[in-house]
Amino acid sequence: MGLGAVSGVTLLLLGFFAVSASAVCRVSGLWETIKNSSRLTKMTIDLNNDGLFNGTYWEAGASIQSNLTGYQQDEELPTFGFTVKSVNSANTIVYVGHCYLPPGGEDILITTRIVKEHSLNPTDFRKMKANQVNFTRISVV
Amino acid sequence: MGLGAVSGVTLLLLGFFAVSASAVCRVSGLWETIKNSSRLTKMTIDLNNDGLFNGTYWEAGASIQSNLTGYQQDEELPTFGFTVKSVNSANTIVYVGHCYLPPGGEDILITTRIVKEHSLNPTDFRKMKANQVNFTRISVV
Amino acid sequence: MGLGAVSGVTLLLLGFFAVSASAVCRVSGLWETIKNSSRLTKMTIDLNNDGLFNGTYWEAGASIQSNLTGYQQDEELPTFGFTVKSVNSANTIVYVGHCYLPPGGEDILITTRIVKEHSLNPTDFRKMKANQVNFTRISVV
Amino acid sequence: MGLGAVSGVTLLLLGFFAVSASAVCRVSGLWETIKNSSRLTKMTIDLNNDGLFNGTYWEAGASIQSNLTGYQQDEELPTFGFTVKSVNSANTIVYVGHCYLPPGGEDILITTRIVKEHSLNPTDFRKMKANQVNFTRISVV
Repeated sequence: MGLGAVSGVTLLLLGFFAVSASAVCRVSGLWETIKNSSRLTKMTIDLNNDGLFNGTYWEAGASIQSNLTGYQQDEELPTFGFTVKSVNSANTIVYVGHCYLPPGGEDILITTRIVKEHSLNPTDFRKMKANQVNFTRISVV
Repeated sequence: MGLGAVSGVTLLLLGFFAVSASAVCRVSGLWETIKNSSRLTKMTIDLNNDGLFNGTYWEAGASIQSNLTGYQQDEELPTFGFTVKSVNSANTIVYVGHCYLPPGGEDILITTRIVKEHSLNPTDFRKMKANQVNFTRISVV
Repeated sequence: MGLGAVSGVTLLLLGFFAVSASAVCRVSGLWETIKNSSRLTKMTIDLNNDGLFNGTYWEAGASIQSNLTGYQQDEELPTFGFTVKSVNSANTIVYVGHCYLPPGGEDILITTRIVKEHSLNPTDFRKMKANQVNFTRISVV
Repeated sequence: MGLGAVSGVTLLLLGFFAVSASAVCRVSGLWETIKNSSRLTKMTIDLNNDGLFNGTYWEAGASIQSNLTGYQQDEELPTFGFTVKSVNSANTIVYVGHCYLPPGGEDILITTRIVKEHSLNPTDFRKMKANQVNFTRISVV
């Protein structure tokens, strides 16, 4: 609520100072997983109209890229999600998360990563793997 | 592996009998959650090139539709994932699942549904809600 | 915060009216999954000292009971968790949740159910199944 | 099944060589999270009859211990689960996992960690945080 009030003020001042761009968290850019993460991943995200985006994705050590597509919401600190069609396997990976801009800091993507592994055995079809994965920005692109 | 061998034969015969379409599970079509599910949802999925798809999504009682986008893999019983940009809230919903075609039966989407709720409080940003949700086909579209 | 204030008043009045027991949510008792749930389960929970509890658990149609053990916290609306050693399989099930007492209503256990299936294949060891499951009280026991 | 057969032979030889203890994975002992994990946790587990166990748990930097209780199944590579009643917060943590003994290696606990944070807001009651966490043995105890 306090944040909402501050943000209202920012918007009012926008025409005068044009400094508020950094107050909005966006998923577009070049990202990599944070350093202490066990799995190094890089990705680019291009944001289109209405929150739709697509991009490219490299898992650790992958020489070729996978494609991703998803949506972000229209908030200052939006939620978002995307799907990766892995080229290294028949698995599908989805991420769902929150774009976060700490006061005075750099933006970060705080996500939950869900993996659905391909199987021919129906008893596996309800299983998933879940993990917490955060991304920091390498560049705005 | 055994299934792969059978499938190879099926593809060779395709020009003669054209009956093998039902052996491949595809996410395209009009779907609804199965009857005993606590949350009735309907969605349409249009499959494009390379497994990319987009579609529309109605949560129970929703009068307007949300948009979805995702990927399916290239297998007979493919994994897939998609993101819903909810119009009813600032939440983002992702589904990840397996397309399943039981012997002699109708195809079904066996999914895990993950919800990320919008929040302005960073302590909420790592939280999610997970559920198992299955869809049956209303029509092929 | 409002709830905390009300609760403080309740504690002050406790010696005079002794009616506040219903303001505290406890996991002890006989429970069953709510009606629209796809999986009917019943369980009894006996609460010991320091939040430790144990109990018995019947999955839908099971003729023999499994055992469970867990902890609840010390709050009015406590979080809790427990483990079920299934007698019907080599799987292990854990529940983690929140005890909730709606104003003027009956208490309810709002849980996430996680299943780890037994496997001899290490590639399965990171997989789980997650679901939302709620329980209502049959009796206090 | 094949593994079961091998194990039967191992048990027959037990009296002669007494080397087969390592063929069975047990959760009892002193454990810590693997080195590249972002969260260092230590715990002791004492296994009682019928797979019931209890123990103590230190989160990174915690000066006092929390208690845990849970069950493991009766297999060679058993599934297991346990609940931690955190002393540092009103949260409850559950772990569910698989005990794994790689050929020629040391046993490892491959787990999913689920956190339910305490809240007074019912809209939070269905939320959880999930992560993959592995433990290696410090000593058998």
